[in-house]
Amino acid sequence: MEKKGRARQAGSGSLMESLGGSDREGHSGTQSSHRLLAYSDALISIIATVMLSPSQVLRESVQLLLSTKICVYLMTFLIVTVAWAAHIRLFQVIVRIDDCLALLNLACMMLITFLPYTFSLMATFPENILGILLFCGCVMVIGVIQSVIVLYAFSQPFLLSEQIQMSENRTFYKHHILKVIMRVPLMCFLASIVSFVVFQLSYVLLAIIIFLPYISRCVEWCHKKVMGPVEESPDSVLFYTYLPNEPLSKERVEAFSDGVYAIVATLLILDICEDNVPDVAVVQQRFGGSLVAALQDYGPEYLAYFGSFVTVGLLWFVHHSLFLHVTKATRFMSLLNTFSLAFVGGLPLAYQLTHEFPRNSQNELEAIQISCVIIFFAGIFQLAIWVVALYNEQETLHPYVRYGGREHVFMLAKLALYPCVALGTFFLTCILSKFSAPIFHLMEITVPFAFLVLRLLVRVGLALIRLIFCPDRPDLRSVVDDDESTVPFNALVT
Amino acid sequence: MEKKGRARQAGSGSLMESLGGSDREGHSGTQSSHRLLAYSDALISIIATVMLSPSQVLRESVQLLLSTKICVYLMTFLIVTVAWAAHIRLFQVIVRIDDCLALLNLACMMLITFLPYTFSLMATFPENILGILLFCGCVMVIGVIQSVIVLYAFSQPFLLSEQIQMSENRTFYKHHILKVIMRVPLMCFLASIVSFVVFQLSYVLLAIIIFLPYISRCVEWCHKKVMGPVEESPDSVLFYTYLPNEPLSKERVEAFSDGVYAIVATLLILDICEDNVPDVAVVQQRFGGSLVAALQDYGPEYLAYFGSFVTVGLLWFVHHSLFLHVTKATRFMSLLNTFSLAFVGGLPLAYQLTHEFPRNSQNELEAIQISCVIIFFAGIFQLAIWVVALYNEQETLHPYVRYGGREHVFMLAKLALYPCVALGTFFLTCILSKFSAPIFHLMEITVPFAFLVLRLLVRVGLALIRLIFCPDRPDLRSVVDDDESTVPFNALVT
Repeated sequence: MEKKGRARQAGSGSLMESLGGSDREGHSGTQSSHRLLAYSDALISIIATVMLSPSQVLRESVQLLLSTKICVYLMTFLIVTVAWAAHIRLFQVIVRIDDCLALLNLACMMLITFLPYTFSLMATFPENILGILLFCGCVMVIGVIQSVIVLYAFSQPFLLSEQIQMSENRTFYKHHILKVIMRVPLMCFLASIVSFVVFQLSYVLLAIIIFLPYISRCVEWCHKKVMGPVEESPDSVLFYTYLPNEPLSKERVEAFSDGVYAIVATLLILDICEDNVPDVAVVQQRFGGSLVAALQDYGPEYLAYFGSFVTVGLLWFVHHSLFLHVTKATRFMSLLNTFSLAFVGGLPLAYQLTHEFPRNSQNELEAIQISCVIIFFAGIFQLAIWVVALYNEQETLHPYVRYGGREHVFMLAKLALYPCVALGTFFLTCILSKFSAPIFHLMEITVPFAFLVLRLLVRVGLALIRLIFCPDRPDLRSVVDDDESTVPFNALVT
Repeated sequence: MEKKGRARQAGSGSLMESLGGSDREGHSGTQSSHRLLAYSDALISIIATVMLSPSQVLRESVQLLLSTKICVYLMTFLIVTVAWAAHIRLFQVIVRIDDCLALLNLACMMLITFLPYTFSLMATFPENILGILLFCGCVMVIGVIQSVIVLYAFSQPFLLSEQIQMSENRTFYKHHILKVIMRVPLMCFLASIVSFVVFQLSYVLLAIIIFLPYISRCVEWCHKKVMGPVEESPDSVLFYTYLPNEPLSKERVEAFSDGVYAIVATLLILDICEDNVPDVAVVQQRFGGSLVAALQDYGPEYLAYFGSFVTVGLLWFVHHSLFLHVTKATRFMSLLNTFSLAFVGGLPLAYQLTHEFPRNSQNELEAIQISCVIIFFAGIFQLAIWVVALYNEQETLHPYVRYGGREHVFMLAKLALYPCVALGTFFLTCILSKFSAPIFHLMEITVPFAFLVLRLLVRVGLALIRLIFCPDRPDLRSVVDDDESTVPFNALVT
C-alpha cells in the first residue's frame, strides 16, 4: 500500500513508468516487496522480544533479575531495532524485489537472528573477546550482504523507487547509501581489532554504534556551525539522513509493533502450557487423584496470564488507535515506539513475578510495583509519540485528532488511561501495601471496561467542564467539524 | 488491499456508498480492519505452532516422541486453524471495525490462545473430564462472543461488506451466519454433557467438530440427492458455505503462513540462546577456561540451527513465489496450506533430534530420515496447492503460471525442488546409512545455491529437452508471451 501510494505520488512525469512497474509485479522476475517485508518484520520482532521470556529467568530475588538478563534483553532489543530501522531504510529505496534479492534478504535475516546469541555470550563471559568477535563478524557479514543488495538493485534500476529511478544523479545516491551502510561494519571491524588490545574499549565502540545516527547528526550539526552550510543535492535529504523527522514506512512500524505485541501476549501461555500441566504421579500422591485440586494450586498463574494478555492486548489497542490517526511515521516517533515496545516486552516477566513469591511478602510488593512502572512507561511513551506528532500535526496527523479536532480529547483520554491507572495503582500499593495484590488485580479487571465506556466518559466529562467553566459559549466542536451530520449516529455511542 | 479491491468490485451501483465508506475510515468510530486482522493472524499462528517447541520435548527415544506431544501438537494445530478459518469468514462479512469490535475480538483471541493448554491437560489426563470441560467452555464462550460480534455488526450496517450492506435480505444473512457460528458451540455443549456419562464418546464428538465443515457438506449433498435441490438465496453461496472453492482472503492466508514460518525459523535460535551458553564454572573446570573449546561442543547444534533456518526460509520463499501467482485462495487450497504448515512446524524438533544422538546410531539415522519425510511432505503439499489451483486456473492463477504460461515450468521446478531433494536424500541415507549425517548436511548447503541458479537450470533443461525431442518445432513460449521484449533482460538471468 505504502509503495503504491508512493508510485502515485511520483506523479504525472513518471506515470507511464509507474504503470509499467505495477504491471510487472506479480509475474516475471520482479515482485512487490510487501510480503518479504512483512516476513522480515515478523522475524525481527520475535528475535527482539523473546530474550526476556519468563522461562529463561532463574526464580530468585527481584533484585538479581535486574542485572544480566535485563541488560542482555535491552541491548538485544536496541541493536535489533537498529538493524530493523536500517532494513526499513534500505527497502524504502528498493521497492521491488526479485528472487535473488529475496534470497539475499533471507541470508541477512539469518545473521540478524543470530545476534542475540552473541549477546548472551558477551553477558556470560564479559572478559572473553569471543562474544565481541562473533558479534562483529555477524554485523560485518550483514553489512557486506546489504551492500551486495544495494549494488544489485542499482544495477537493475527498475527495482528502485520511482524517485531514484527518475533521478539523474543515481550514482551519487548509490555512493551515499553504500557509505551509510558500510559505516556500521567498519566500526565493528575497528571494535574487533581493538578488542585484542583493550576489550573494555570495544564495548564502548559497540555502544557508539547503537547511537551512531544521533552522534553523526550532532557532528554534522557542529560541522555546519563551524564551516557554514555545505552544498547538498536538492533531494538527498529525503532518505538516509538521520534527521529525526525522516519518514519511516508507517506500515512497517505497525507490522513490527504487531509482531512484538503478538509474541509478548503469547509468551505467558507458552510458559503455562509447558510448566503448569501437573504430573500424573504428583496428582495421585498429593491431591488424591483430584485434578481440580491440583490445578487450584496454579490459580494465581492463570490470573497472571489473563492479566498479562489483557494488558498487552489493550496496549496494542491503544497503539492501533494511535497509528490509525497518524499519517506519517518519523524516525523520532519510531524511536519512542521502540522504547514503548521494550517496556511491553518486560510485561510477561513482571506478571509472572507477581505470583512467584509468598503473599504479602516484600518481593511480591516489589514485583507488583515493577509491573506498574513497566505499564506506566509503556503507556507514557505511546503518549509521547502522539505529543511529538502534535508538534508537526499538519504533516503527521489526521485532522480529526489535531489540536481542536473532534477526536482530540478522546485520543488523549485513550492514551492517558494506562499511565494514569498505573500511576494510581503504584501509589495505592505504596500506601496500602497489605492489599497490593487485590488492588492490582482489580485494576486489571476494570481497565477493559473503562475502555469500553471511554467515549461516554469523555463526553460526560467534556459536558461537565463546559457546563462549569463556560456555560454560554457555543459548542466548540461544531466549529471544527462541519460534517458531523454525515457520520452515522451509532458510531458516536461506543 | 483486499478490502479496497472488494470495495472497487462492488462497482457502479454502490460507488457513492463505498467512497463514503473509505472516507470514513481513519477517523470517527469506524476503522479499516486491516491491522486488527494482521494482529489476530500473528497471535493465532504463534499459538498454532509453538506447542512443538524443541525445549518442551523430553530427550528420549525418537519413538517415544511420536506419541503424546505430537498428538497434542497436531490437534492444536488443527483446531486453531479451524478457529482461524472461522475468523477469516467472519471478517470477510464484517469489513470495517470500531473500538467495540476490536475489544470483542481481543477477548476472542485470549480464549483461542488458551485452547492449547486445555489440549495439554487432555493429553496428560485423558480419563479426566476436566480438560474436555475446559475446552468446551472456551469454545462456547468464543461462540457467544462471535455471535455478539455478528449481532453488533448487523445493527450497524456500515461495518458490513458492501455486498451485504446493499442486499435486501440482510436478515436472512444474519440468521444464516448465526446458525453456522453456533453450530460448533452447540456440539461442544453436547460433548461436555456426554463427557459426564461416557467420556470416550465426547472425544469422538470433538473430532467431529474439526471435520464438521466436510461432514456438513456431505450431509447436504446426500440431502440434495434424496430430496431434490432446495431453493437458495441467489448469492448466499458466496460465503459461509463449506464449498471447497469458497474464497478465503488471500492476504490473511499469507499473513498466517508468514507468522508460522517466522516463529518456526526462530524457535531453534531461542532454544540455543537458552541452553547453549555454557556455564562459567563448567568452562573453567572442563575446558581450562577456553571458551572456544567449550563452544565446539555445541558445534552440531549451530549446524542444526543454520540448517533449520535455511530450510524454513526457503520453504517460505517457495510459498511466497507460489502465492505471488495465486490470484484467489480457496478453502481447499487453504486446507492444503494448513497441512504444509503443520509439517513445517515439526522441522525445528526434527532438526534438533538430528544432533541429539551419538554419531551413526540408529536414532540419528531415524531422526535424519524423519527430517527428510517432514521436508518432503511440507514441499509436496505446497506443490498440491499449485496443482489444485491449476484445475481452476482461469480463476485462481495469474496467466503467466498457467499451463503453457511463460513461468509455468519454472514454478513447477521451484515447487518440486524440495520434495525431490528430500526424497533423494531419504533413499540415499537408506542405502548409505553410514554417511547419513554428511549427506544430510551437504543437502542443506547445496539447496540454497540450487535456488539461486534454478532459472538458469530450467532454461538449460528446457533447451535440452527441446533439442532432443522436437528440434524443428518453433519455440513454444513465443506463442504464449508476446511481451517478452518489454521485460528487461536482467530479470531473466536469476
